[in-house]
Amino acid sequence: MSELGLIEKIRQLAGTSTHKSLVQSIGDDCAILRPPKNRDLVFTTDFVLENRHFTLDTHSPADIGHKALARSLSDLAAMGAEPLFCLVSLAIPAAAQSFVPNFYKGLLSLARQHNISLAGGDLAQFPSVMADVMCCGTVPTGKAFLRGAAKLGDFIYVTGALGNSAKGFRTRRGAAWKQHRRPEPRVAAGIALRRFGVRCAMDMSDGLSLDLARLCTESNVSASLHAPLPIAPGATLDDALHGGEDYELLFTAPARKKLPPEIAGLRITKIGSIIPRQSVSITLDEQPLPPKGFDHFA
Amino acid sequence: MSELGLIEKIRQLAGTSTHKSLVQSIGDDCAILRPPKNRDLVFTTDFVLENRHFTLDTHSPADIGHKALARSLSDLAAMGAEPLFCLVSLAIPAAAQSFVPNFYKGLLSLARQHNISLAGGDLAQFPSVMADVMCCGTVPTGKAFLRGAAKLGDFIYVTGALGNSAKGFRTRRGAAWKQHRRPEPRVAAGIALRRFGVRCAMDMSDGLSLDLARLCTESNVSASLHAPLPIAPGATLDDALHGGEDYELLFTAPARKKLPPEIAGLRITKIGSIIPRQSVSITLDEQPLPPKGFDHFA
Repeated sequence: MSELGLIEKIRQLAGTSTHKSLVQSIGDDCAILRPPKNRDLVFTTDFVLENRHFTLDTHSPADIGHKALARSLSDLAAMGAEPLFCLVSLAIPAAAQSFVPNFYKGLLSLARQHNISLAGGDLAQFPSVMADVMCCGTVPTGKAFLRGAAKLGDFIYVTGALGNSAKGFRTRRGAAWKQHRRPEPRVAAGIALRRFGVRCAMDMSDGLSLDLARLCTESNVSASLHAPLPIAPGATLDDALHGGEDYELLFTAPARKKLPPEIAGLRITKIGSIIPRQSVSITLDEQPLPPKGFDHFA
Repeated sequence: MSELGLIEKIRQLAGTSTHKSLVQSIGDDCAILRPPKNRDLVFTTDFVLENRHFTLDTHSPADIGHKALARSLSDLAAMGAEPLFCLVSLAIPAAAQSFVPNFYKGLLSLARQHNISLAGGDLAQFPSVMADVMCCGTVPTGKAFLRGAAKLGDFIYVTGALGNSAKGFRTRRGAAWKQHRRPEPRVAAGIALRRFGVRCAMDMSDGLSLDLARLCTESNVSASLHAPLPIAPGATLDDALHGGEDYELLFTAPARKKLPPEIAGLRITKIGSIIPRQSVSITLDEQPLPPKGFDHFA
């Protein structure tokens, strides 16, 4: 099949957008958006790369499509944003053309769950499989979560349980392995937390210890954590502290703010407090917690 | 240098955005845009891949950065859009960290010429060098060029000269080789043509014969071309008809519309007319012209 034929196939799979602000989708040099009023737009882009984020013998094309979109959707969740559209750049070996529709089926199944439209992208031939997904979402003007918005005295919270993805990666079994292959971005929880007035959040893609250190840097504060952490059943403390790809939300809120025990079906756990900046960025039960999560260039 | 250190270096090189609509740039989970009023936004994304779009022995890191942005900026030109911001995903081998600042210097030098801000992206380690650049631009509401807007009787035009990039790729010498390595996106020409009332355009990245066939498909018309074409000095007719990466603009306008001989410093040449749809998409001097430009999966 030619490039044009493959693109036409993708266009058919994508169908028509439910967002009327998207006035031109796949098929022109650019997608065209007529921005909704009184909203900010948020934008993110994330790679998934063969043998870095997946391998072809453990992940189906549909798994890879799911994961490629999930990583970027998780960044929208981290802003409290409602998903709007995505652009997908996909490179595959020439021999792997049947990969294309299956990749898009996995991606579009997740896209429909979160009401995000496929609006365009790029398709190229390359010896390895890789994808780069750009997602755009909307929030009411000025209401996007910021990493730099943590205030002294805020409590620190996480959604769900930590360490499940690392456990899945290690054991290659059961629900944890499925969560590693097909992570569920916390989009609904992000939107609900924004409606509760949360202002500071991020998603955990590289592990709590590294991601929280980044939040502390942007907010110019330190963090004091305490046990017990919401460790996923069967996961180790190390999985929970330093394992990547849980894609749970990490957020802060003023101590006086009452949050429900669950939000959008996810447990919320208080894990510590924001304190003045110190030489040590994070402590856990008063011991220094060095950032050890995933660093591409460590 | 760690991933965080590299990102901090990129953030310093990028500096502060001149677009006040960009309220959050590098450093959070997403970039945040407060959309300008009475404008549509246009979005595009394009890969540049090692040994597909460049080789490390012929292209410097700065060349690759330039080319990565130029390909996406050319899509903004193809919509008549004013550049606003870009997101850059870059993957490099671990050993190639010095590549990163030089890649960004080449990219940012072109970005400053076209007033486009670097607002974020992704950075990953991978055995090959590759980049995916997403560009966002703005046009007055409803004024973006469309491939599907060609009307019967319209004249067909191109900017500049054709075949120079293919000649440069073949000869590896002189200005043509420089144009191949560092293509100049026709952003100013696109904006000027929009102000002249042009409604149908695209950029030529894969060659006139293939790109014009795409325009005809979207507009449900055929095209009748005539000699002489504006062939670049020293380029062949084949270079001009089927050579990719010229990044000139292809556009149509009503026959009655007076266009100047030059626009934004670029010659404009009438090369044919839009005619009713026929079994043959394009003819040149009444002979069928098959689409032979670059197809990733041909």
